[in-house]
Amino acid sequence: MTAFNYDLLHRDPDSQARRGCITTTRGEIQTPVFMPVGTQGTVKAMLPEALKDIGAQIILANTYHLYLRPGHDLVKQMGGLHRFMNWDRPILTDSGGFQVFSLGELRRITEEGAAFQSHLDGSRHLLTPELSMDIQLALGSDIVMVFDECIPHPAERKYVVDSTNRSARWARRCRDVIPSGSGSALFGIVQGGMETDLRQQSAEQLQEIGFEGYALGGLSVGEETALMYDMMEYSLPLLPENRPRYVMGVGTPENLVEGVARGCDMFDCVMPTRNARNGVLFTTFGKISIKQAQYRDDDRPIDADCDCYVCRNYSRAYLRHLYRSGEILASVLNTHHNLYYYQQLMAAVRRSLEEGTFTSFRKNFYHKRDLSH
Amino acid sequence: MTAFNYDLLHRDPDSQARRGCITTTRGEIQTPVFMPVGTQGTVKAMLPEALKDIGAQIILANTYHLYLRPGHDLVKQMGGLHRFMNWDRPILTDSGGFQVFSLGELRRITEEGAAFQSHLDGSRHLLTPELSMDIQLALGSDIVMVFDECIPHPAERKYVVDSTNRSARWARRCRDVIPSGSGSALFGIVQGGMETDLRQQSAEQLQEIGFEGYALGGLSVGEETALMYDMMEYSLPLLPENRPRYVMGVGTPENLVEGVARGCDMFDCVMPTRNARNGVLFTTFGKISIKQAQYRDDDRPIDADCDCYVCRNYSRAYLRHLYRSGEILASVLNTHHNLYYYQQLMAAVRRSLEEGTFTSFRKNFYHKRDLSH
Repeated sequence: MTAFNYDLLHRDPDSQARRGCITTTRGEIQTPVFMPVGTQGTVKAMLPEALKDIGAQIILANTYHLYLRPGHDLVKQMGGLHRFMNWDRPILTDSGGFQVFSLGELRRITEEGAAFQSHLDGSRHLLTPELSMDIQLALGSDIVMVFDECIPHPAERKYVVDSTNRSARWARRCRDVIPSGSGSALFGIVQGGMETDLRQQSAEQLQEIGFEGYALGGLSVGEETALMYDMMEYSLPLLPENRPRYVMGVGTPENLVEGVARGCDMFDCVMPTRNARNGVLFTTFGKISIKQAQYRDDDRPIDADCDCYVCRNYSRAYLRHLYRSGEILASVLNTHHNLYYYQQLMAAVRRSLEEGTFTSFRKNFYHKRDLSH
Repeated sequence: MTAFNYDLLHRDPDSQARRGCITTTRGEIQTPVFMPVGTQGTVKAMLPEALKDIGAQIILANTYHLYLRPGHDLVKQMGGLHRFMNWDRPILTDSGGFQVFSLGELRRITEEGAAFQSHLDGSRHLLTPELSMDIQLALGSDIVMVFDECIPHPAERKYVVDSTNRSARWARRCRDVIPSGSGSALFGIVQGGMETDLRQQSAEQLQEIGFEGYALGGLSVGEETALMYDMMEYSLPLLPENRPRYVMGVGTPENLVEGVARGCDMFDCVMPTRNARNGVLFTTFGKISIKQAQYRDDDRPIDADCDCYVCRNYSRAYLRHLYRSGEILASVLNTHHNLYYYQQLMAAVRRSLEEGTFTSFRKNFYHKRDLSH
């Protein structure tokens, strides 16, 4: 069993951007990387083979959802999540914390953990750092995230202080369950709200414990984009260079490019998949809403610069028809295109970092978008 | 452009079953054949490539639906239905009649045609034999069906007489629009309700006009299965041997095997696709409902005798989880399996007819189903 490892391959001379490679027992992950979200044991509307075709190297699965349904014990009994869902590449699992706070009802946080009621059936649960680790291990996760609290924004400083400290204590309890060098990698999550000193404190607390990778949590929670970029810019350099850095729940194509420029290696977001199901498609010249009347008799592909399966075979007029008709194929094709767009974007980012042309890539990325206005 | 043709290749010595081959300008269709239904310009939840993978030779598209949305003129402008939906194999289009009577509102039949209001927006329309032909030609159909009335069951004899005669007059008007030897083949549809003499009269009226193929309409409309089989047994031998015979809207796997035994070459039905979306799956040992609790921790494939993509890669437990979670992938995988089951069934029927073993095939088909009870 190869140990989890991160190799820093290239460094951009003009920004914090880095080109690296993560090694896991289930294969390599070239970074920067975008991870499609597979909430309930499936990336919505995508076959695993299609995910591979578009170059997905790793997907994210949600601990909260799989814990409630079908249950981690069942998934383990069925041979683990990889076998259950027919996906043999790496899986990163979140800790369940974010969903407890966004979906769970009547939630209450104590030192022990977070008590909540299921959004599915109202049943009562107590999610602790230890249980979160047990669930993620039962799923067979390749990259386990520590159980933490995602602090809402805005929040009182006192709350941020208390929560960040508690999350640090929880992080230690997680490390105790999954020590360094075990089968799964464990990532710490920097909290601290929008307070730079608390972000620094959190980053230090986590490094004292020591993790295989580090994430920024509590971003993309409603704050201004500029503030999010500031927090990335401030926090990412606080993390060790020889470990992967992951900004959770981010984001738009622009967010990804800016995150890379600030030193981030890993991203995940429901945006490409969720937008797809709502008929919103990503292109090199910005977003389009396929339901619009202007596409009624538009024989062109979504994006003339895209060579994905959808753009090679289907017109905007057809995709609009499918969407308006409520056809399942609308979600299938739209999701395929959007995830391809994200994967190709990150592939282009990686190439530019290898070639030392990230700055011009970034300029051109915005230039194409501006042209469409 | 190759003319439409039907070659009778093998005849079963013990039944009316026949093994044939239809030649169209878009390729050959080995019969007996099952045609997946692509109502709105997509076989629900299936990519065209997946349809080809499972051996679909021809699909059916619905004139009524495509006329109302996105409109046949738009489809024509986009290069025809084949290009619009990325399907280069043959397409059979129905006439719209069946949907006018089952979905249209405030419908009224006159000699001219059928007036109705759209089920989508209440808009008023008059579908005539001529318009139905125009629509089907605009779509670029390979096999056009005459515009007819599908008589409900039960029905007064007087109504059946009048309707059957009117459908015959409509059939002639359809033939006038699409003469023999034009690009699209035109099929006549035998009506006559459940009255054998009227079925005979209808079959004669149609042959007098002359069509490239003949269908039985007005079956599978709520009558007893035995009566449907009787009507097939009586009506199919009334049709010319050198033309393909199609029983419309039929049916279950058992119906297909019995239809073949009675001399039918072509079938279509929404059953495999619709059932799939409701979690009902076809197997060699009968149907199963994947939502049942007994499959919660069932690690086996849907059908151990099936070698489809789904059965090779996914467990009943996973499919149950997807279904309960309302995931799009549930519809995708269930549809794939069910259509594969139908395609494989027909492929096995064809092989048995080539090998002269249809009788034992039929016996074994029922034997496997009985074993499961």
